[in-house]
Amino acid sequence: MNTAKDMGIRAKEASRRLASASPKAKYVFLQNMARLLNDRKKDILAANKKDIEEAENIGMDTPRLDRLTLTNAIIQDMHKACLHVAEMPDPIGAMETQWQQPNGILVGKMRVPLGVICMIYEARPNVTVDAAILCLKAGNAVILRGGSEALNSNKALAALLREALVSAGLPEDAVQLVQSTDHSMVSQLCKLDEYIDVIIPRGGEGLVRTVTETATMPVLKHYKGVCHAFVDASADLSMALNIVYNGKVQRPGVCNALECVLMHRDVAESFLPMMAAKLGAAGVEFRADAASLPLLGEHAKAMTENDLGMEFHDLILAVCIVDNLDAALAHIAKYNSNHTDVIVTNDYANACRFVREADASMVGVNVSTRFNDGGQLGLGAEIGISTSKLHSYGPMGVTELTTTKFVVTGAGQVRE
Amino acid sequence: MNTAKDMGIRAKEASRRLASASPKAKYVFLQNMARLLNDRKKDILAANKKDIEEAENIGMDTPRLDRLTLTNAIIQDMHKACLHVAEMPDPIGAMETQWQQPNGILVGKMRVPLGVICMIYEARPNVTVDAAILCLKAGNAVILRGGSEALNSNKALAALLREALVSAGLPEDAVQLVQSTDHSMVSQLCKLDEYIDVIIPRGGEGLVRTVTETATMPVLKHYKGVCHAFVDASADLSMALNIVYNGKVQRPGVCNALECVLMHRDVAESFLPMMAAKLGAAGVEFRADAASLPLLGEHAKAMTENDLGMEFHDLILAVCIVDNLDAALAHIAKYNSNHTDVIVTNDYANACRFVREADASMVGVNVSTRFNDGGQLGLGAEIGISTSKLHSYGPMGVTELTTTKFVVTGAGQVRE
Repeated sequence: MNTAKDMGIRAKEASRRLASASPKAKYVFLQNMARLLNDRKKDILAANKKDIEEAENIGMDTPRLDRLTLTNAIIQDMHKACLHVAEMPDPIGAMETQWQQPNGILVGKMRVPLGVICMIYEARPNVTVDAAILCLKAGNAVILRGGSEALNSNKALAALLREALVSAGLPEDAVQLVQSTDHSMVSQLCKLDEYIDVIIPRGGEGLVRTVTETATMPVLKHYKGVCHAFVDASADLSMALNIVYNGKVQRPGVCNALECVLMHRDVAESFLPMMAAKLGAAGVEFRADAASLPLLGEHAKAMTENDLGMEFHDLILAVCIVDNLDAALAHIAKYNSNHTDVIVTNDYANACRFVREADASMVGVNVSTRFNDGGQLGLGAEIGISTSKLHSYGPMGVTELTTTKFVVTGAGQVRE
Repeated sequence: MNTAKDMGIRAKEASRRLASASPKAKYVFLQNMARLLNDRKKDILAANKKDIEEAENIGMDTPRLDRLTLTNAIIQDMHKACLHVAEMPDPIGAMETQWQQPNGILVGKMRVPLGVICMIYEARPNVTVDAAILCLKAGNAVILRGGSEALNSNKALAALLREALVSAGLPEDAVQLVQSTDHSMVSQLCKLDEYIDVIIPRGGEGLVRTVTETATMPVLKHYKGVCHAFVDASADLSMALNIVYNGKVQRPGVCNALECVLMHRDVAESFLPMMAAKLGAAGVEFRADAASLPLLGEHAKAMTENDLGMEFHDLILAVCIVDNLDAALAHIAKYNSNHTDVIVTNDYANACRFVREADASMVGVNVSTRFNDGGQLGLGAEIGISTSKLHSYGPMGVTELTTTKFVVTGAGQVRE
């Protein structure tokens, strides 16, 4: 039987071979995978069609159905991602820094894979390929557990990943898909700290919470994004308007979308009616505190306590008036999710304090919250955005799927 | 009542103030603490005497009693540690790297504190000061839970830490000592992921295992050290002898002591009798596999399966003969604890493969395992040696008690 433990043992064994695999072998694997995605497009779409039909039968809602659905364009994106990751520099084996101690030992830090990564994610089959290729590029074996509604699609894609590994001379068990839809598999995986080095839950709050509470290995949380923008008294108000509009309207369903505007009292009367007009016309609804409500017009209603710290995933924006930077920082400390918070200001001291004191994986000055993304920040492809501070805080690219070990070379030195 | 949650809330609040504290304030705190350790030496020793008397009454064993006991020399070491950490550069607030994206946003990674650190450790009161000052230097608030047998000593030392904080204008709740000896406090602390960013268990396997299984926040494990030395066919045998002797004999009770020699078959007959003579004279007992037993003389007995992967904490050394590097690496993969493994060789290709493929927080070529230590590697003071790969793998100094966040500055850029 294919138990979680069997998978763990095989992954650990494969990870040893992958850790010392040549950059060339990993390159060939990625090229092979790109080609297979083209060659077997029909099979992939047929498997996905089965998933979609079953999902429609059980009445899956539209946003989830959208994420489940593969199209020619999405397969083309996966194909391009393989080619892109293939061309990225191989991070493994490089000595990042080295120094000599007085006794002549040379101390270095070498970049090495994490080992075995377990990804637990929703029914979104493109994640199967996007996550696996980044983990493998970084020299890790990966155990994938996608939402059960995508099982047929995931089986088809995982089979291609394994085929591409074998044809590059790499161990096929470097990618294993959990095929059982039994929920107890997740809790079994969470206990396999002997074999799994890190577990990455990606999805809703419930999933992240369950894995965090159950796992005995480190968890890299990709938690919700409750992003704030503080519009300071000295802000260029037309710049602030663009930033708030972009944060809320461009793509309201994602984790770096703006959820709450904190408005300096001195400019609230100038700014909020302007904001209400522009965002209101785009369909945004406001949840306003008592002071801002009269300034926001027809699209606003009084907020409840639940509207603070809320990830709306929708064209809804919380608005609060604050007295000063201290009040804005206190609000952010209380309600943010350590994801993304920005200030719009022309006050140098306030900008510096905000950057230093707001505690989020990305803090910004005079930029949109929407930049908290691996591609936008220049890290290349990402596996998600970590909101835990340990190991990686912010977008996780290939480098963040590795670690460093100390390498000490000498000529027989012993400790005095 | 002083519940775990109350402590968490106060620590979180203190951590906000500490994160933006000036380097000067932290410097003054450390200088004050150094002075208080001198001024109040009598009180500290008196409190420690109470702990020792109670421990003797309950028949505590000698090694534990040694670790519990404070002396003038140990207090002097703590004093010096405060002055040393005071003079170290302040890691917080520096932008470690910065680059510009095509749209003109400037992306940087700023070093910031982790937030709130919970240390759980054995009855060893010097850890109270050593751990607290490193955490505070890195801008973190700390919750300390030392072994209950050291409670009087820890109360005395924690009171001084809090006094030193206040006299430096820093929040006293940046250091809180758990004063309840109720074991359920540990499991309560392990669930406070809303307030505690990382938990560091330091002590026996049982403690580390319990915290790992219970904690919902990231755990930095400081696990046992099962350290190996592989003596290759091309090794300089007198160098190998020094390295093995140093690893096993110099201080057998610590985590970077050598536990197992893997001996290349081709040189076993030359090396093992020499090793048996020198280490045997120092009181070392060998646990030998079938092939090595006849070469080790009177100090050896046949090993059992339990002797592999064992941290002896004593003058006992496991010895196995292996056919080649592959067999040595396979043995290490199976039995090491990801702590420290070294090769003694003059073969370039074998040295490179060992460095790349042995999976430990420190791998070494022609050096003693005993170098896996923050001071020896040049990191300065350390809080322990992490054997988890996430965040920090190896000795953890001040920098490893911090993280980085993304700082993005612009002139109104929004996402296209």
